[in-house]
Amino acid sequence: MFKMVHHCYNVLDLEKSLRFYDEALGLKEKRRMDTPGFTLVFLGDGVGEFELELTYLKDRTEPYDLGEGEFHLAFETKDLAAAHAKHEAMGCICFENHDLGVYFIEDPDGYWLEIVPAR
Amino acid sequence: MFKMVHHCYNVLDLEKSLRFYDEALGLKEKRRMDTPGFTLVFLGDGVGEFELELTYLKDRTEPYDLGEGEFHLAFETKDLAAAHAKHEAMGCICFENHDLGVYFIEDPDGYWLEIVPAR
Repeated sequence: MFKMVHHCYNVLDLEKSLRFYDEALGLKEKRRMDTPGFTLVFLGDGVGEFELELTYLKDRTEPYDLGEGEFHLAFETKDLAAAHAKHEAMGCICFENHDLGVYFIEDPDGYWLEIVPAR
Repeated sequence: MFKMVHHCYNVLDLEKSLRFYDEALGLKEKRRMDTPGFTLVFLGDGVGEFELELTYLKDRTEPYDLGEGEFHLAFETKDLAAAHAKHEAMGCICFENHDLGVYFIEDPDGYWLEIVPAR
């Protein structure tokens, strides 16, 4: 009866976030809704159906308080070494878990994103 | 090169969360990893490939600080009225956006989940 369709993060600088998600993860805009107060942009990875929604509140000026930030969106890749090299060059790797063979990158608002090898 | 595969939330009471996600959204356990310090459980909706991961740290006793909580996982349903009645009976509806025709429910840790009509 219920299907997971998207995850949403509020972002402080929409253009900066769109560039980051494109450069770091290849996400592209699929559609957007623009109103006087806010903009919603839905991004797709070109492979799966699930989408990432970015919410931009136009009058927001303060960084978002993420609390402990004990949550993350995960992306799989068939070439973890190439992905790691790319993210290292971008300087966005924030944590490496060598035991599990995964690592995390941080987006412009501080949201953590996990990079895992394809199963 | 990158595909969105799961979202993860840390939860304080694993059994309580598993019951909630099953009862409220029909999510079922697909696999788990258990270690002395933590348990990871991956839930599926039986329709799509995307999974929800719950992370349970065994020595955690304090509720998680979610900050402003300006993020959410979204679920679509073909019968929004039936979903709304079910969640109203469960007492977990925390916000209704009548303009957009969506509403939000809250999980045991306070994570917001959006319920949207299938497109």
